Amino acid sequence: MNDMHMMSFGASRRQVLVGKIRTVAQDRPLRLSCGKDIADIPVAYQTYGTLNEAKDNAILICHALTGDQYVASGNPVTGKAGWWNFMVGSGKPIDTDRFFVICSNVLGGCMGTYGPKHHDAEGNVLGLNFPVVTIRDMVAVQQRLIESFGITQLFAVIGGSVGGMQVLQWAVDFPNMVRCVIPMATAARHNAQNIAYHEIGRQAIMADPDWQDGAYHDAGTFPVKGLSIARMTAHVTYLSENALQHKFGRMLQHGDVLDFSFDANFQVESYLRHQGVSFVERFDPNSYLYVTKAADYFDLAQPHDGALSLAFAHTPVSFCLLSFTTDWLYPTMETRHIVRALNAQGADVSFAEIDSPYGHDAFLMEDTHIMNVLGGFLDGKAKKFGVGV
Amino acid sequence: MNDMHMMSFGASRRQVLVGKIRTVAQDRPLRLSCGKDIADIPVAYQTYGTLNEAKDNAILICHALTGDQYVASGNPVTGKAGWWNFMVGSGKPIDTDRFFVICSNVLGGCMGTYGPKHHDAEGNVLGLNFPVVTIRDMVAVQQRLIESFGITQLFAVIGGSVGGMQVLQWAVDFPNMVRCVIPMATAARHNAQNIAYHEIGRQAIMADPDWQDGAYHDAGTFPVKGLSIARMTAHVTYLSENALQHKFGRMLQHGDVLDFSFDANFQVESYLRHQGVSFVERFDPNSYLYVTKAADYFDLAQPHDGALSLAFAHTPVSFCLLSFTTDWLYPTMETRHIVRALNAQGADVSFAEIDSPYGHDAFLMEDTHIMNVLGGFLDGKAKKFGVGV
Repeated sequence: MNDMHMMSFGASRRQVLVGKIRTVAQDRPLRLSCGKDIADIPVAYQTYGTLNEAKDNAILICHALTGDQYVASGNPVTGKAGWWNFMVGSGKPIDTDRFFVICSNVLGGCMGTYGPKHHDAEGNVLGLNFPVVTIRDMVAVQQRLIESFGITQLFAVIGGSVGGMQVLQWAVDFPNMVRCVIPMATAARHNAQNIAYHEIGRQAIMADPDWQDGAYHDAGTFPVKGLSIARMTAHVTYLSENALQHKFGRMLQHGDVLDFSFDANFQVESYLRHQGVSFVERFDPNSYLYVTKAADYFDLAQPHDGALSLAFAHTPVSFCLLSFTTDWLYPTMETRHIVRALNAQGADVSFAEIDSPYGHDAFLMEDTHIMNVLGGFLDGKAKKFGVGV
Repeated sequence: MNDMHMMSFGASRRQVLVGKIRTVAQDRPLRLSCGKDIADIPVAYQTYGTLNEAKDNAILICHALTGDQYVASGNPVTGKAGWWNFMVGSGKPIDTDRFFVICSNVLGGCMGTYGPKHHDAEGNVLGLNFPVVTIRDMVAVQQRLIESFGITQLFAVIGGSVGGMQVLQWAVDFPNMVRCVIPMATAARHNAQNIAYHEIGRQAIMADPDWQDGAYHDAGTFPVKGLSIARMTAHVTYLSENALQHKFGRMLQHGDVLDFSFDANFQVESYLRHQGVSFVERFDPNSYLYVTKAADYFDLAQPHDGALSLAFAHTPVSFCLLSFTTDWLYPTMETRHIVRALNAQGADVSFAEIDSPYGHDAFLMEDTHIMNVLGGFLDGKAKKFGVGV
């Protein structure tokens, strides 16, 4: 197993410093949900803290749709601080003095793990020749990565949104390989509205002539406008109506003058355009197609004819579920549905609905309630299992 | 004043049979909110029923964002029945045996009233040379149309959504020219989320290279994809999450097989794509920019430094406001805000929140609750004022 620091994957618009990479599935190819086998899968990841002798203090953090492995350290692409800096670190709720924290870029992503930006054996960028992958496939790759560390059981798997889906999938697919899970702001399946918004984003990308049927790397183009519109559409779903209204209301860009044009006149318009433009600087359009599709395909009850509780039959895993009052993308109702399924199995379940004005993005916001719930749960379970103490 | 049946406005992709047209503001030009004067404004409209001798039995219906004047008769463009057939007609809640019903296409629209598809004096399609108009401007044009019938007071003005904004604007701008108003599923101002979704739609249109900076008529192109994405984005906001989930859930197009591709796999994806495509057949992209912008600019409280009640000072108008439980685009909260402002003025106000699963589009759905509230209110006021009886 080789750790390396490398510069990535030529054909992207920008050269990306991806940090640590391991190649997994070298001996045993991985069979994807679509039926294809893949092997020698590069996985980009970061770690924080120290794996103890017993190798029982590891926490896997699963990032959200367009997140990355830079949980608690600077992202070399954006130059921004780690996206969960307030949560992960020495003395923080996910305490790196006690726990060994791992976060890897998802399969299909664009931050170093195997995805549509990679090349085939002939050196061509994969683009749409990359297979359509599922949350289950993403988790299977993570499991290989965890194995590569010699870890036989994770202390915890934690994540929000599409990261939360991965967390749930971990509990379903590898119940004996994880002591506890913390899925936040998530659901056991994508509903019709979730799929609808993702589909609009994909259509926006694919409508952009610069997308070039996915071969923009070869064409030397980049679907800036399409990807930007996809991000704008998604971004509105991440915020609550109240948060948008509170932050921007009907405030104008320039004093109180309506400009009677189609320029960005309201501050919320300018803000949205900025969200779109800055996303284009850091994300790969084809990866956006793949990760949104994986989320849309997610449905833990599907293999059980809709009976979600059967997905968790006799689960030994301890669950702590968090939802947020103003999250309308994955509302509390979706989490309650999971809680009921777990209750039906007599599982060990904690559930907190946290009052927050920030909508779906609440799990990314520094908030003492979240930090207390998460830190308290981990501390309690660590003491119970004698881990990381 | 001339009524005529004509074939419309060459430069659109399709020749459109627009029905009745009157030219208003022939003597007195109309000063728009942006400061420009316009004159000789063609207004396309339909009427149902008969204007009585006293000319006091007229009801103006204001259509929504992408609606049209074909309230209760076949639309020649789409071939579809009138959009409010169940509400307007002989013996129906808006009873054409008693009332004379008028509906005109809005200023900036694309169904015959003056808009960006029209030509300038040199014969060039206006496109973005058409002025940015407001809800107030739309209503001012309607007022000229009503005058042209010799009507000095409307019995009622009725409309939902952006039509409801026009209704409210009528009450504010011409309080002595209307006895009662029925604004439905609307708000006194567009909030940040409303503006955000409209802005995404506009960006999608303007990102399409076939939009040609608004000059697609001259270029012989048409931003099919951009307009389609704009419609898809808006369409999701018109439905409730429950309605989408109930109608489509996670049902697939072809049995229960995930196709692991980016084709429309879920029924909701196919449905959305169809919504986009069929919209392109009937609506003008530049008109979409103009009517969404007019809605975004709408804010009745703005001239009164945010004090909405002052917009209705001493109003003699009778109000009947309707909202719908699952409308998240213009939620009941927005209507309550208007009701409170009217109460502060001691206005005559009825308010009903109607339980409906259909989200914002509920006002377009045949529903006995809506029909009873609306029919009952009109009947009561007609008897009180001795109109149409």
